[in-house]
Amino acid sequence: MKLLHKRIIKDGVVLPGNILKVDSFLNHQIDVELLIEIGKEFKKRFIKKKITKVLTVEASGIAVATVTAINFKVPVVFAKKDHSHNQDNQLYESEAYSYTKKQPYVMKVSKKYITSDDNVLIIDDFLANGEAVKALIDICHQAKCQIAGVGIVIEKTFQPGREKIEKFNLHVESLARISKMDNGLVTFL
Amino acid sequence: MKLLHKRIIKDGVVLPGNILKVDSFLNHQIDVELLIEIGKEFKKRFIKKKITKVLTVEASGIAVATVTAINFKVPVVFAKKDHSHNQDNQLYESEAYSYTKKQPYVMKVSKKYITSDDNVLIIDDFLANGEAVKALIDICHQAKCQIAGVGIVIEKTFQPGREKIEKFNLHVESLARISKMDNGLVTFL
Repeated sequence: MKLLHKRIIKDGVVLPGNILKVDSFLNHQIDVELLIEIGKEFKKRFIKKKITKVLTVEASGIAVATVTAINFKVPVVFAKKDHSHNQDNQLYESEAYSYTKKQPYVMKVSKKYITSDDNVLIIDDFLANGEAVKALIDICHQAKCQIAGVGIVIEKTFQPGREKIEKFNLHVESLARISKMDNGLVTFL
Repeated sequence: MKLLHKRIIKDGVVLPGNILKVDSFLNHQIDVELLIEIGKEFKKRFIKKKITKVLTVEASGIAVATVTAINFKVPVVFAKKDHSHNQDNQLYESEAYSYTKKQPYVMKVSKKYITSDDNVLIIDDFLANGEAVKALIDICHQAKCQIAGVGIVIEKTFQPGREKIEKFNLHVESLARISKMDNGLVTFL
């Protein structure tokens, strides 16, 4: 997605440790014009799938998932993060590891909002180590729903995320695929 | 806002301790059609203000603030929550108490995204004890920006939130004002 590539080059900040900060337009301050185009692009890429629900995880996935859900005219569900399992049989729970916060966390979704009748589009802002998306896939498996695909805004192709997801034979679409971030410069695949 | 009143009566669940669960349409699963109407309603109520930015706090404020910002064609900024102050001079920080989680937390906003040139509309899903909104106001005061107003989806008028905000002489708009929740029944003001 050209508009996004341009914006990453213009306003993305590369920090040591392969960190890409997109705080100024995607996950602290959000440029709503760009966000609307991202929503339209996901609609275009998954237009043939009969999506019934968009699933993401709080917090930075919510805005992107919401505009995507608006385009598909379906509800959006966001998984909540917590530090402990609570063995609540009303909830699907899955554990993931946060490389940013260097600690594990538990993702939770009420069983009421994802059911075996759903065809779910999983959306997230980043795909790097794939921990968050893997936990969302696990929740879908627990719910025995269909997974229409996985839509990612920014993927770091040099990290193992995509490989982990493709094991599940899923349709993955990333709007920007970054293959390298050397000396503060971003290279797209 | 009639559509919202109807939805709260139909799908809101009143729990002991004056808790209103709106998980099925507002803050776990989100009905995007209702959300779009909420965004339009905030636009209508603050149409005369020259808003430059919408400010909220993660996580459940993000979807509502995003659609509101889309209506005003301005960026949305969401404050991040953390457990500790980090004395970072790039950040505005304000402490708030979470009655849900029974612990204090620190709200953080990068100084880059709210400046003295801004006219900020503060948006949140709930107003009860007013802790989150008070911290967002404090961040605006630190940034020396104008505050155009405060937009709330659901207000519990029997809790002290509005009183705390009105001390600052601000224009507050709530789309649903609940005065009582007795025996599982919601009464609007």
